[in-house]
Amino acid sequence: MPELRQNILTGQWVVVATERAARPAHFFSSPREESLDSKDCPFCPGNEAMTPPEVYALRLAASEADGPGWEVRVVPNKFPAFAEGEEVRDSTAMYPRRGAEGAHEVIIHSPNHFSDISRMDEEGVEKVLRVYKNRYSFQSQKDFVRYVQIIVNHGVESGASIPHSHSQLFALPLVPPLIQEEIAGSLWHQKSRGKCALCAMVEAELEAQERLITKNRHFVAFSPFAARFPFEVWIVPREHRDSFEKMEEEELESMAFILKDVLSRYRERLDGVSYNYFIHTAPCDGSDYSYYHWHLEAFPRVTTPGSFEAGTLMMINITTPEECSDFLSGRGERISFKPGGEIS
Amino acid sequence: MPELRQNILTGQWVVVATERAARPAHFFSSPREESLDSKDCPFCPGNEAMTPPEVYALRLAASEADGPGWEVRVVPNKFPAFAEGEEVRDSTAMYPRRGAEGAHEVIIHSPNHFSDISRMDEEGVEKVLRVYKNRYSFQSQKDFVRYVQIIVNHGVESGASIPHSHSQLFALPLVPPLIQEEIAGSLWHQKSRGKCALCAMVEAELEAQERLITKNRHFVAFSPFAARFPFEVWIVPREHRDSFEKMEEEELESMAFILKDVLSRYRERLDGVSYNYFIHTAPCDGSDYSYYHWHLEAFPRVTTPGSFEAGTLMMINITTPEECSDFLSGRGERISFKPGGEIS
Repeated sequence: MPELRQNILTGQWVVVATERAARPAHFFSSPREESLDSKDCPFCPGNEAMTPPEVYALRLAASEADGPGWEVRVVPNKFPAFAEGEEVRDSTAMYPRRGAEGAHEVIIHSPNHFSDISRMDEEGVEKVLRVYKNRYSFQSQKDFVRYVQIIVNHGVESGASIPHSHSQLFALPLVPPLIQEEIAGSLWHQKSRGKCALCAMVEAELEAQERLITKNRHFVAFSPFAARFPFEVWIVPREHRDSFEKMEEEELESMAFILKDVLSRYRERLDGVSYNYFIHTAPCDGSDYSYYHWHLEAFPRVTTPGSFEAGTLMMINITTPEECSDFLSGRGERISFKPGGEIS
Repeated sequence: MPELRQNILTGQWVVVATERAARPAHFFSSPREESLDSKDCPFCPGNEAMTPPEVYALRLAASEADGPGWEVRVVPNKFPAFAEGEEVRDSTAMYPRRGAEGAHEVIIHSPNHFSDISRMDEEGVEKVLRVYKNRYSFQSQKDFVRYVQIIVNHGVESGASIPHSHSQLFALPLVPPLIQEEIAGSLWHQKSRGKCALCAMVEAELEAQERLITKNRHFVAFSPFAARFPFEVWIVPREHRDSFEKMEEEELESMAFILKDVLSRYRERLDGVSYNYFIHTAPCDGSDYSYYHWHLEAFPRVTTPGSFEAGTLMMINITTPEECSDFLSGRGERISFKPGGEIS
């Protein structure tokens, strides 16, 4: 059972999950090169027995659980960072600890070992997003779950241990620090300026244009003014909703298009770079977060944070979001560093 | 001139420093392998003209500035993240920005291209620490400087762009988020428990033994209970002082020994791994931080944080500090993952 430990100096909680150390490390044969071999891949059809039994799947008629015939498949993470079945821990004032109670699921995007969200057709991406909603609803209803974090690590430099395209869902017993900061900021904007910060940001970015990447009927994709990472992109729904779960069907279809579009720009313009994305949504702890505005944040792995970032929690971004946006949108080709992972 | 931009959602500031994108990227010939070629190294003796003019150096008698004959050499960073000479910026409510006013220096540890702190003799490390104190004093006296961050990135996976062993000093116009959190926690401990958190921690770790790595007369090195990273080590002075700058000569000599010792354990036991360290000390903004306890934090680069960490600001540690401490101290060899960078 993984556990949460509190740093008594900062008050922050760290997940200690030694089970995760046993994750496979051999799937990426060399840096920046994806495994071409799918026969030992636990996420490929035919290898269903290599994962824990599935908890959900979109399946072709007449196919059976834990066999081939699925389009999207959800399984518990074999090496969980959060799990049910809390052991009692001896927490003290000096060493505060608790069980890392929650859930950690893997959402396998498609049977294709060589695909990813950027290469799938929009219909396939829609299915993945529908599965996100389904699993979000299931996990967020649990009493002890206060936040559900959905993420993707894709490519060896993203932190992924398996190349076959997949998402991870973490059901957490606490609201993470970054979400707490966004909530505090959103509340401040609502009270002091009478407006949602992200609604204002969408309006301002559509007006300013210079950080805009792409947009459609329901979403706007832009590189945020205070981007933490080169080529960071936020995909923000035009309609103000606190929770990802409340997105309507028409919006979901629209989101599939824009997500595939943004990740395709990473792949095509940044030489098949590794990337990360995560969804920020309102906590599910029973409080009112109607002033919060859910969104998705993505970034490619083109730089390596060092001691400054680890020691201060401040980021140094060696690009401007304006030039990154020019580059990703096709408005300009000028960029102050050569993409492709040359800078570390 | 680099600038600071504020994320209006979180309130956090990001440094936008496009000059840094021009840093050399060719010094590391391949991952995990350091350049064997020192003739183009800007930090090697004879190449002094490749850096901006030195601002400080420990020199042999009769040697001249910006020529060979130095033991430790300090130059302004050629690609600064903070600098003097602020331009006026048009900051608005929607786009808050200010100049990244401050300083960014490079402290070259020795003339030897193939050395690092772990390979230098203690006398050499002492000299580096004395230069830290000297530059800290110089920068912290400036009116607009509120915090001075000293760090080391060593090795290609640490975020370093140049292999020749060096430190970086950042004079900042603000107190970084992680320091703010430590200050808030320290104040809470002082007020609620009548004791400094780190004084209590040193006492508890000496008693518990299980996270202890090594100790000497003036310092204790242990892996903290809520370690963010595998093999994270804190080097904490036994004597309570708020600022690194107030360390006495005898303590400085003691610190040289323990710092070299800890980094030698990384090198010897973790296969020449890349590592990071940084000093946490009281801000120099004129307020009273007598309840704060300065220290140094180090960690090797054996894992790659992914979307979970970037999206939540919570860390998942795949080891326990107890097993890491056993491994580094030599008390035990059991470790739940094979060191050497195999896990990503």
